[in-house]
Amino acid sequence: MSEHELRVGLIGAGRMGADHARRLHERVSGARLVAVGDPDPDRAGAAADGIPGARAETDPMTVLGASDVDAVVVASPGPVHEPLLLAAIDRGIPVLCEKPLTPDAKSSLRVVEAEAARGRKLVQVGFMRRFDPEYLELKETLDTGALGRPLLLHCAHRNAEHPPGFTTDMLISDSVVHEFDTTRWLLGEDITAVSVRQQGLEASDDPAIPQIVTMETASGVLVDVEIFVQCRFGYQVRCEAVCEHGTALVGADAGMRTHSAGRWGGSVTPDFRPRFRQAFDAEFQRWADAARRGGIDGASAWDGYAAAVACEAGIDAQRTGRRTALEMAERPELYG
Amino acid sequence: MSEHELRVGLIGAGRMGADHARRLHERVSGARLVAVGDPDPDRAGAAADGIPGARAETDPMTVLGASDVDAVVVASPGPVHEPLLLAAIDRGIPVLCEKPLTPDAKSSLRVVEAEAARGRKLVQVGFMRRFDPEYLELKETLDTGALGRPLLLHCAHRNAEHPPGFTTDMLISDSVVHEFDTTRWLLGEDITAVSVRQQGLEASDDPAIPQIVTMETASGVLVDVEIFVQCRFGYQVRCEAVCEHGTALVGADAGMRTHSAGRWGGSVTPDFRPRFRQAFDAEFQRWADAARRGGIDGASAWDGYAAAVACEAGIDAQRTGRRTALEMAERPELYG
Amino acid sequence: MSEHELRVGLIGAGRMGADHARRLHERVSGARLVAVGDPDPDRAGAAADGIPGARAETDPMTVLGASDVDAVVVASPGPVHEPLLLAAIDRGIPVLCEKPLTPDAKSSLRVVEAEAARGRKLVQVGFMRRFDPEYLELKETLDTGALGRPLLLHCAHRNAEHPPGFTTDMLISDSVVHEFDTTRWLLGEDITAVSVRQQGLEASDDPAIPQIVTMETASGVLVDVEIFVQCRFGYQVRCEAVCEHGTALVGADAGMRTHSAGRWGGSVTPDFRPRFRQAFDAEFQRWADAARRGGIDGASAWDGYAAAVACEAGIDAQRTGRRTALEMAERPELYG
Amino acid sequence: MSEHELRVGLIGAGRMGADHARRLHERVSGARLVAVGDPDPDRAGAAADGIPGARAETDPMTVLGASDVDAVVVASPGPVHEPLLLAAIDRGIPVLCEKPLTPDAKSSLRVVEAEAARGRKLVQVGFMRRFDPEYLELKETLDTGALGRPLLLHCAHRNAEHPPGFTTDMLISDSVVHEFDTTRWLLGEDITAVSVRQQGLEASDDPAIPQIVTMETASGVLVDVEIFVQCRFGYQVRCEAVCEHGTALVGADAGMRTHSAGRWGGSVTPDFRPRFRQAFDAEFQRWADAARRGGIDGASAWDGYAAAVACEAGIDAQRTGRRTALEMAERPELYG
Repeated sequence: MSEHELRVGLIGAGRMGADHARRLHERVSGARLVAVGDPDPDRAGAAADGIPGARAETDPMTVLGASDVDAVVVASPGPVHEPLLLAAIDRGIPVLCEKPLTPDAKSSLRVVEAEAARGRKLVQVGFMRRFDPEYLELKETLDTGALGRPLLLHCAHRNAEHPPGFTTDMLISDSVVHEFDTTRWLLGEDITAVSVRQQGLEASDDPAIPQIVTMETASGVLVDVEIFVQCRFGYQVRCEAVCEHGTALVGADAGMRTHSAGRWGGSVTPDFRPRFRQAFDAEFQRWADAARRGGIDGASAWDGYAAAVACEAGIDAQRTGRRTALEMAERPELYG
Repeated sequence: MSEHELRVGLIGAGRMGADHARRLHERVSGARLVAVGDPDPDRAGAAADGIPGARAETDPMTVLGASDVDAVVVASPGPVHEPLLLAAIDRGIPVLCEKPLTPDAKSSLRVVEAEAARGRKLVQVGFMRRFDPEYLELKETLDTGALGRPLLLHCAHRNAEHPPGFTTDMLISDSVVHEFDTTRWLLGEDITAVSVRQQGLEASDDPAIPQIVTMETASGVLVDVEIFVQCRFGYQVRCEAVCEHGTALVGADAGMRTHSAGRWGGSVTPDFRPRFRQAFDAEFQRWADAARRGGIDGASAWDGYAAAVACEAGIDAQRTGRRTALEMAERPELYG
Repeated sequence: MSEHELRVGLIGAGRMGADHARRLHERVSGARLVAVGDPDPDRAGAAADGIPGARAETDPMTVLGASDVDAVVVASPGPVHEPLLLAAIDRGIPVLCEKPLTPDAKSSLRVVEAEAARGRKLVQVGFMRRFDPEYLELKETLDTGALGRPLLLHCAHRNAEHPPGFTTDMLISDSVVHEFDTTRWLLGEDITAVSVRQQGLEASDDPAIPQIVTMETASGVLVDVEIFVQCRFGYQVRCEAVCEHGTALVGADAGMRTHSAGRWGGSVTPDFRPRFRQAFDAEFQRWADAARRGGIDGASAWDGYAAAVACEAGIDAQRTGRRTALEMAERPELYG
Repeated sequence: MSEHELRVGLIGAGRMGADHARRLHERVSGARLVAVGDPDPDRAGAAADGIPGARAETDPMTVLGASDVDAVVVASPGPVHEPLLLAAIDRGIPVLCEKPLTPDAKSSLRVVEAEAARGRKLVQVGFMRRFDPEYLELKETLDTGALGRPLLLHCAHRNAEHPPGFTTDMLISDSVVHEFDTTRWLLGEDITAVSVRQQGLEASDDPAIPQIVTMETASGVLVDVEIFVQCRFGYQVRCEAVCEHGTALVGADAGMRTHSAGRWGGSVTPDFRPRFRQAFDAEFQRWADAARRGGIDGASAWDGYAAAVACEAGIDAQRTGRRTALEMAERPELYG
């Protein structure tokens, strides 16, 4: 690792961005937050507040272009990602970009192409499950082949309550996008088609109604995902791989167990942040380490593009009720 | 309960029938095995052997017609059930019939109609999961409404190895038929459509390849079932109900736990008999109690017919790859 | 098994006796309850009520001496056991005697000696844990030696609430007596000394205060038992064997699991009857089978005596705060 | 947090020290390793190797006295701790000292007195369990009083294999010392007496033989600890608090679960480092944060002294077979 600290600019100071500011300041070694950019000066100021040496800016591009910024974390809304990413690629500085890479496949492909043209991976997408200890154990188990070839994945992705303004599209693009990425990463192959079924007798645009998303992969693995963002009891992410010689499950219940008032058991984490805090920390630490060497260490822009393609197919499948095949561009050599 | 013991005739002395002979003799109170009928005299003899007062017969109809037989257990192959059931209905004696009621919906309907014409429920179908302590707890939980309305059921049904001669049709008619019945029983409503997906890139008639069967119910509940009869590690039956305010899971791992050689955990039951032995015992005891009063206490002939309709639709869905709607006859008043 | 049904007399129609009456009538094959003896005619009548052919008596000895009684179940209070057992031994009829065999070691030894003099095991003591599927699995695991030699047992024995009139003596003689028997049975060796510690700063005769009972066995195994009969949350019995190469635990949490309102987990059984119902049923079925052949199939009178010796030592240790060694009579050949 | 990075000197570059060097360099924010001191130049060099700006020294006192060292981590053997700690207190620099504070109560008290004389807490003892998420959850649960007053703690502390040269004394001073500290921390009160029992018929000085250590606390809580450092299957640390209205357990089995070859379950962590890696990281991060403000954030020198007193009593109890009362010095106001 280089001797020099990584000077990081943070773009986007909403709930997630503010979390990342604290993370960079308090828990990431070898990195220092120097600037926070957010069009809302109050939010930018609040995120930078109490972090010595961190200034607030209202123009994200100013952060990106600052001479004392070695790398950036992008936590602004998806629709503004593209120009930021293209500018960072142009400047040649590493980026950790919260998902989505961009809101649609076409714009994601433009980012991929820009990066491929530059010939160096600079953009990492914030799929933090790749850093979760249990998912890592699952991947390792699948990779060793100890259980034989994977045949099926059963996933459940549950939130206690969806935020205001959540839509059925977002069930796919905001939630199931994680399963799109973990499927590709765990199995090391692409998704080829998606289908969606909604619970209930009639089609509804209420995101509180659970849906079952089914994917097919290049080798014929079937993946089903329950997405239920109004399950009331808490946050739960589960994945069971069914292989030729056995199964492996992550996301089972853990933590302290009590017996009281006729019940035994434990508590459910209320939302994704405590559940994946360790994964976020590891993701940031490893990204910072890689960025100091000028690169990335996680999901690439290509992975972000692949997720965008799957999301578009998923939303189409959701709307039409039909199985939708994925069509992906050719993979540039950079991501070979 | 009546003072008199129930004198039971057993028809069919294969592996399951032989088990039931021991069960009737050793663990069912108030019932006595008096005759075993099987075309194979060796099998009939072996099953009756060592049970005082039990004789072996080669003609099942002789058993059914014997003056000292108060009730019969039918454990012979499905294709010979119909005439036996019609004869029992005709004689007015209670029957516990191993599933399937009959191999197809049409013949099942004939049994239903004969029973309805007689005006008395005499035929119970051997869906033993209705007597499993965990499934009973699940049903009770759903019935109380403590978790709100059920929205989804996720089921897994796994066997270590399928027997020789098993076919993909039998994945539905022999295995998933249990989930057809538990779905109807747990939710108290009918199945309206079935779809089937097979793992793998190409259609195959190898029953060792897992399939995902999806059902829809009258109220819009989605039910998915993994059927995998060559999972290698053992027998496992699991059902998770996802409701408006929480989830409930049965079939989680239980029993003694060890820590040794770097691993913690327990053993998996090798097949359905140890897993459901308690359910079989309870089913037989409660059937015998009911039969002494002249009736049944479990799945009815109508439930057997409904399962047959679902099986036919499931096999069609499996073959065509399409969602198949179920068409059921009108329900006779007897089963109202 | 003999062709003839076992005609059983039940002595003692309290809560436990009434349970056993239903059990014998409803769930035990090959046995029939013919008489219930209890000094309280209402209780005797209530227990016999609805069981065809069962009569109520107020003199237990009348039941024991009746010509139509082949075997007896003794569920009356411990202090009246001795004359009943001696009479049954004298008559040569099999007995299933609820624990304790008798309330003290001396009287228990008299029963043992009477039985030894007669030269036939007729008395079985109702230590039902020996028939619990999990305890059986634990014993089998220890017996195979798969985990090496047992070194320690950690036990917990918890009741939601103790009944009125419960005393600290009864913590030992009524509760820990089960651990005395399971220890001897699991390890196949005798207990040599007992120590007791009470929670809290000062000695108290409040049975609601938990105690830790420690036993030593002939081979040097240390066994600790938490006895806590006012734990509020439910009934729990747990045993962990620590062996040379691993550990084995029974009594871990099982059953249906829910996720609701921020919690995952299951329910705790409220008392010993649902927890050990299956064990009681198996105990009775196997005793009835053995009794029809004239013998027993479970804990012997000698085991009952050994438990009585351990109880006396335990109560002494509890009172004195000292380690108390056990002194047992010589074991008659009958129990060799 | 101050703007300036904490410049840390590490004293002791054995296995644990080398781990801590990587931790400081790779995972602690706001701290920088500047010097490693170890009498063995190879070990010092190896630990500093690859860490830009970190130099190796062979005299620990040189590290402690260096003008560019703001704080030190002491990971050298216990017998050399005292002079290092006294020197650090004298210089007024914060220390994170691996347990034990010092090898005996008398020398620990000298450290306490020196610190009290200086009037500022500078020494933190490395009891990392206080930073483990599960132990923290347990403490919070006890502190809220949701389960009522704690009555008992049952602990198990198991290592797969003890290192060469391990002794029965070390069972107490190296292993159970953690339970001494967690007991004091969880319950917020002192230990008043200790007893020890060894498994087996005869006293042995083989540390591979498990022992049961029992503590009493000021309020009368009984704490039992199984210490078994040759359990073969892996590393396991468990604590169950039994309270007036319920129990709470930490250290239950967690992680990915597989079903394969007839078994379900997960893997056991091989040693304390993976089990407590997250706790070590948090401990170091929070210590570094506190050290930048000139203080500590964890177990104090007084806690280290209290642990030393308990260890001496435990070793005495182990040798004599008797209950040994603890005698502690008066607590200086600084630790009030």
